[in-house]
Amino acid sequence: MLLERELIQSVGFRNVRSGDAVTGFQLRLRMPSYRGMAASLIDGVSVRVGDIVEVGPEVPLWTFGGRTYTLAQLWESEGVRWPLEEAAIVTVPFEGGLPDGVHEVSIELRLRMSYIPVEHQPSTYRTTRHITLSPEADGGPFRYGVSLYSYMHDFGTVMDLETALASIADIGATGVEILGEGHVPGYPAPTTAWIDRWFQLLETYKLEPTNYGSWIDTRLHSSGPAARDLTAQEGAAMLQRDLRLAKTLGFRFVRPKIGVVSSDLVPHPIWNEAVERSLELAADLDVVICPEIHSPTPIKHQVVDDYIELIRRTGTEHFGLLLDTGIFQDRPIPLRPGELPGKRPDFLDGIAVDPADIADIAQYVVFVQAKFHDIDENLHDHQIPWEPVLRGLHAAGYTGYLSSEYEGEREPWRAIEQVRRQHTVMRRIAATF
Amino acid sequence: MLLERELIQSVGFRNVRSGDAVTGFQLRLRMPSYRGMAASLIDGVSVRVGDIVEVGPEVPLWTFGGRTYTLAQLWESEGVRWPLEEAAIVTVPFEGGLPDGVHEVSIELRLRMSYIPVEHQPSTYRTTRHITLSPEADGGPFRYGVSLYSYMHDFGTVMDLETALASIADIGATGVEILGEGHVPGYPAPTTAWIDRWFQLLETYKLEPTNYGSWIDTRLHSSGPAARDLTAQEGAAMLQRDLRLAKTLGFRFVRPKIGVVSSDLVPHPIWNEAVERSLELAADLDVVICPEIHSPTPIKHQVVDDYIELIRRTGTEHFGLLLDTGIFQDRPIPLRPGELPGKRPDFLDGIAVDPADIADIAQYVVFVQAKFHDIDENLHDHQIPWEPVLRGLHAAGYTGYLSSEYEGEREPWRAIEQVRRQHTVMRRIAATF
Repeated sequence: MLLERELIQSVGFRNVRSGDAVTGFQLRLRMPSYRGMAASLIDGVSVRVGDIVEVGPEVPLWTFGGRTYTLAQLWESEGVRWPLEEAAIVTVPFEGGLPDGVHEVSIELRLRMSYIPVEHQPSTYRTTRHITLSPEADGGPFRYGVSLYSYMHDFGTVMDLETALASIADIGATGVEILGEGHVPGYPAPTTAWIDRWFQLLETYKLEPTNYGSWIDTRLHSSGPAARDLTAQEGAAMLQRDLRLAKTLGFRFVRPKIGVVSSDLVPHPIWNEAVERSLELAADLDVVICPEIHSPTPIKHQVVDDYIELIRRTGTEHFGLLLDTGIFQDRPIPLRPGELPGKRPDFLDGIAVDPADIADIAQYVVFVQAKFHDIDENLHDHQIPWEPVLRGLHAAGYTGYLSSEYEGEREPWRAIEQVRRQHTVMRRIAATF
Repeated sequence: MLLERELIQSVGFRNVRSGDAVTGFQLRLRMPSYRGMAASLIDGVSVRVGDIVEVGPEVPLWTFGGRTYTLAQLWESEGVRWPLEEAAIVTVPFEGGLPDGVHEVSIELRLRMSYIPVEHQPSTYRTTRHITLSPEADGGPFRYGVSLYSYMHDFGTVMDLETALASIADIGATGVEILGEGHVPGYPAPTTAWIDRWFQLLETYKLEPTNYGSWIDTRLHSSGPAARDLTAQEGAAMLQRDLRLAKTLGFRFVRPKIGVVSSDLVPHPIWNEAVERSLELAADLDVVICPEIHSPTPIKHQVVDDYIELIRRTGTEHFGLLLDTGIFQDRPIPLRPGELPGKRPDFLDGIAVDPADIADIAQYVVFVQAKFHDIDENLHDHQIPWEPVLRGLHAAGYTGYLSSEYEGEREPWRAIEQVRRQHTVMRRIAATF
């Protein structure tokens, strides 16, 4: 379990309830010293949230090891500790709680260091950060999940599996999506110990496995003197390897990312046979194979028609479509350093598929990856038009998962906050349906 | 185990030997994709090190799961994988290897992504970074260690215990120093499982526990209506708690950081009794209590005289002095944002103790914390004059540990590289004695 670098953590910022009443809000603080310490050394924390509430250092309550204390109780305590590796939970009594959304939170934390001359005491830590309250809106007809894809580059450098799952549970999401080759150590044969831990963590964080991402690497052997494409049989074996592992880990959907043969992502011709050879296994395992409709491929496209044709021809209930909301992007992703206008693939400006098109394929859509790139402090998404997208999904009768795929800037820890914002945006819109 | 954020890792950059001959060098690369992948999808990596060596993409060897392959062998391989969570070890054959020191290392890595249109393939990742070769110099009369204090703010956010120990072992250091309240989960009563893992990791990374940092928090109960100072008896209990835990974890030295009562760090008067009451236990455990001589307290100071007086009076062999090299700092730490010249404590400009003073107390010095702040790419330390400091220690007959305490800027991952540089600097100087 790892903490965010900032003293004020995004994860854990939420309203608290007593029965039906909202009695205040909580936030989590990382210990700013280089050591943990006895909690009697805390001299309080003042908290300000925008123009909404401001309380003095003696007001917030402190929770350590599952027990909650007033500041005066901490001063008298023996053996209560704020460990370096655990965030303190600070609760501010505030009737009605905070409104849903992003807030500017400021703290002034005071700690007594016995080894610093008293004229420089207490040690005072002031910081301000914009963080997003765990969403309050109901979320309407959809279910909410997060793909660990969102934490690209964070996973394994600033996040471990438990940290990731905790951040997902904290926003009230119930589904977790992984990439088999990304998030299963020892893939394709994780240890029993790892599998046990996976299920323990799911139980702890009350999450269910949703979609499992896999690859059919058609260019697996396309370099070197014996270069060749993957055969359909090899493609089927690859898919089946992942179907089995996905089932072992409790997943209900497998998205094979199939090698392509054109700029508009037409899949390699082996896809059809590789999938058909695997349908019986998919049925036995009750796992649905669902390739994605992904930018730059729109909904109205031969690729999608071919997928649907397979379903009609075979009558399978174990093949479907995964919709990636990146196809609805209608404003450009900002140029990255070194990128020149007109010198990058056009689809990065957005292919702006009309959400009304969803209706045409709705009966085959089994899963939605809620791709996005940047949501600002005013909860404005700069690329994806969530209102029409969610309205389109709802009109088409979709009631499954919206599974976050954050794909924006990769500064460490940014994804955690971005996903919180996205779930707030999506739930608010969906709550109006 | 976590990886550094940069694709080119600092940890693992080293010369490789075959018998007595240096046959090349190695570096470790983090997988740049968001998934692990079959190693047959690698299309090579070209490597350049400054003006010293440049090799094409087919030259380096690749090590996965302890086995080493040529690029051609990877193309033919089945089941060999570059996992997301493990750095690839890239070996460049280069007779004689690289010279000791900091190098500008550039790579161009090529990976085949089957799902990207072939006109944009292979996916190519170019990056350059200054990293420090695992030190080659012998290190002369001293032993080398690192305090986990060096990783302040990194530990628990971008590093776990194993990552930290691996980084220490990678520079040929043999000693690890911890802070009891910082690095022992569940302090003061870690679980047996954690203690077992601690010893397993020490064995894996061939490290020995050196010094254990503790605190005597004289202000533990100095807030609130019942405010009071710690009693000598309580101080002794606190020290003894840490002596026992230190011994359990294999440490030979305990540095109690004692509360102070003046701006030049005169310890609280209870220190004497707290220590004396603990000397018998220290002898039983064979652990040496060693408070530090720390800036702004110089060597010639009443505090040090008092410590020595205790040793003389009691004849104990379980009390000694820990020397923090921050007292030799002779150039200022740069102003931090918001700091104004003349508006911060003077000692941040360095108290510049004469290293010749070491001789006066040498017989009592049992441990050295090698405090430092900033070493640049030319291996120039901007604050600590290592040549006279190490010469002074050597002249005084010190042959114990130099245990790194990096205390500079806290950008994530910076400490790893800084410690590598410091060990290179110290070993080079010491090798000339």
